[in-house]
Amino acid sequence: MINFEFHTPTKIFFGKDTHKQIGEIISNYGFKKILLHYGGGSIKKTGLYDQVLESLNRNKIEFIELGGVEPNPKVGLVRKGAQICKEEKVDMVLAVGGGSVIDSSKVIAIAALSDHDPWEFSSKKETPAKALPVGAILTLSASGSEMSSSAVLTNEDGEFKRGFNSDFNRPLFSILNPELTYSVDKFQTGCGIVDIMMHTLERYFTKTRDVDLTDQIAEGLLRSVIRAGEIAINNPEDYEARATLMWAGSLSHNDLTGAGRDYFMTCHQLEHEISGIYDSVAHGAGLSIIFPAWAKYIYKHNVEKFCQYAVRVWNIQMNFENPEETALKGIIATENYFKSIDMPVRLSELNITDEKFEEMAEKCTFFGNRTLPDYIPLGKKEIIEIFELCR
Amino acid sequence: MINFEFHTPTKIFFGKDTHKQIGEIISNYGFKKILLHYGGGSIKKTGLYDQVLESLNRNKIEFIELGGVEPNPKVGLVRKGAQICKEEKVDMVLAVGGGSVIDSSKVIAIAALSDHDPWEFSSKKETPAKALPVGAILTLSASGSEMSSSAVLTNEDGEFKRGFNSDFNRPLFSILNPELTYSVDKFQTGCGIVDIMMHTLERYFTKTRDVDLTDQIAEGLLRSVIRAGEIAINNPEDYEARATLMWAGSLSHNDLTGAGRDYFMTCHQLEHEISGIYDSVAHGAGLSIIFPAWAKYIYKHNVEKFCQYAVRVWNIQMNFENPEETALKGIIATENYFKSIDMPVRLSELNITDEKFEEMAEKCTFFGNRTLPDYIPLGKKEIIEIFELCR
Repeated sequence: MINFEFHTPTKIFFGKDTHKQIGEIISNYGFKKILLHYGGGSIKKTGLYDQVLESLNRNKIEFIELGGVEPNPKVGLVRKGAQICKEEKVDMVLAVGGGSVIDSSKVIAIAALSDHDPWEFSSKKETPAKALPVGAILTLSASGSEMSSSAVLTNEDGEFKRGFNSDFNRPLFSILNPELTYSVDKFQTGCGIVDIMMHTLERYFTKTRDVDLTDQIAEGLLRSVIRAGEIAINNPEDYEARATLMWAGSLSHNDLTGAGRDYFMTCHQLEHEISGIYDSVAHGAGLSIIFPAWAKYIYKHNVEKFCQYAVRVWNIQMNFENPEETALKGIIATENYFKSIDMPVRLSELNITDEKFEEMAEKCTFFGNRTLPDYIPLGKKEIIEIFELCR
Repeated sequence: MINFEFHTPTKIFFGKDTHKQIGEIISNYGFKKILLHYGGGSIKKTGLYDQVLESLNRNKIEFIELGGVEPNPKVGLVRKGAQICKEEKVDMVLAVGGGSVIDSSKVIAIAALSDHDPWEFSSKKETPAKALPVGAILTLSASGSEMSSSAVLTNEDGEFKRGFNSDFNRPLFSILNPELTYSVDKFQTGCGIVDIMMHTLERYFTKTRDVDLTDQIAEGLLRSVIRAGEIAINNPEDYEARATLMWAGSLSHNDLTGAGRDYFMTCHQLEHEISGIYDSVAHGAGLSIIFPAWAKYIYKHNVEKFCQYAVRVWNIQMNFENPEETALKGIIATENYFKSIDMPVRLSELNITDEKFEEMAEKCTFFGNRTLPDYIPLGKKEIIEIFELCR
């Protein structure tokens, strides 16, 4: 186990009807004027928007609206949001939506108290020094942004997708009502399941030894998500399955499953290159394609850990004569699970060819300026080889 | 899963040498004058005291010392600590020690900003409205107080032991260096292992259904603690085992293993009556006696959950013909584990007879004013029957 800091100050309000307290919660914190930030308007269709406004009005919370966050949120809208916060002197940013809306809100909250362009934080040229508080009403179990220190933005000039971590990215509070995810369709539910699993898997496949406690927690979370995922896909209004996914989504990215170890986040970095260029590719769909390819490429460099994964998470019998077979079976079980919840496992399913592999690998290595750390270092050549396995 | 709030704002600094940063950490928060609170002087013997002072002095942190916290910390010393804080206008309380020192510090920090006697908070007559910040350097993996919202005190007038929960009981930060627990002797290490397991077990045996994710996390934590406990007992300087116990101690009482469910904490309440009267009984030793008795008394009222515990935590084969047998085997496995780490499992081992069972049961029911909620309500008669199973 290596030294670590752990800090999850975000207060969680979890359960049925909790979003109806939003006005009271904001009022208890003493905020009076907020930026209400949301996406493409689905919250208006579901009635959530009206419920939020009702509670804000009842508690005399003044709000300025900024909708229009897209999947893979754009820095352009963040600039606009920060400008509004400055001009209107708002006290906090309330995100109503999924990870994109929350990520957009986080960077708005930082840029609102800074003279720097928001992209300077995303591209890690600047480190945040302060931020407005962010609250969230979550409508999608996936990114874990509601409890995480990370935010990912896309720069529409050049199709770069970049994330950064900061304690200023941790929301002050998040409201998690699983019922708000009943309306999430099958595909988006599947994307969320993959994203949650990947946040844990990316931390699980580490070089750090002696992390049994964190491993046990990660494996338990994965087993629970795998089971709940199947149920939620087939019965979108199963409260318990939706609740499991929602809480697992938060725990899988608040660093509980990373405590005491180094990790790579390779699949996320490779995926960002896909959805950075092909804007229509959902993050979860990119990940369900990348993971099997990455795992097949890398598992021989840590057969022991991939065997542990196969045995403990997928209940696969250990083959002591041929551990590589066991390791591979765990990867195939994951790939089959992704298929079973209707997620793509090859780029061809999304009609993406190899034409931009070179460009994606270039961007991913910052034009030859870095290799990705992993069980073996991944340079441009290796990254292209992994993309080849995605075809 | 039931609705819940989850809030663990305590910042954790975990790992080797982390305690040597104490001055910098306090300074970064902006505090200048602290109450340095500790126990019976073992920190002077180990050299920790000198290291703390060195860091405080180097960072020009002014401090007033108050040592002398006993196991089962007394309200008398808390009164004294609160008085000092008021007179000396300190900014924060630094606890250097185990759960007793941290609990004592928490109530000092609350009483320091209040006109009420500290016992009024412990006896739940008053609710805290504010508190000085508390920081901790942990020297014992056990109570979980370093990340919990609870504090337990003993009132020496009448031998009452009472705990209360409050968000104001959450430390601002805690420093967890597993090396500081190398000097903890075998018996105290065993007590800690039992306490950690019990914090999770008391949350695990719940009436709430559909808590698979929280169950999986709890079971993983238990398996990891059981394994690390054996190692630490036999090799006190095994860093990884000590690290597992230390991190598990925090996670087992920060409510991660309680999320989404109601729980009883019956064993803790019964144990408080034992160590409240028999001051020499360590909390962990009381718990290792109480749990097997409680479990044997109650398991028939939720055979299914006790079977799940036996199968998943102790790897016991499920007997579908006779589930009660499986359930009982899990309880016996726990009892045998406690014995294997040299913990007592009967009161007779501590030379305690039945002479005060009546008095303990009386106090536990608040003199007939309450029953303990459990799978069946526990009144005076049932509590005495459980004590009888402890003989």
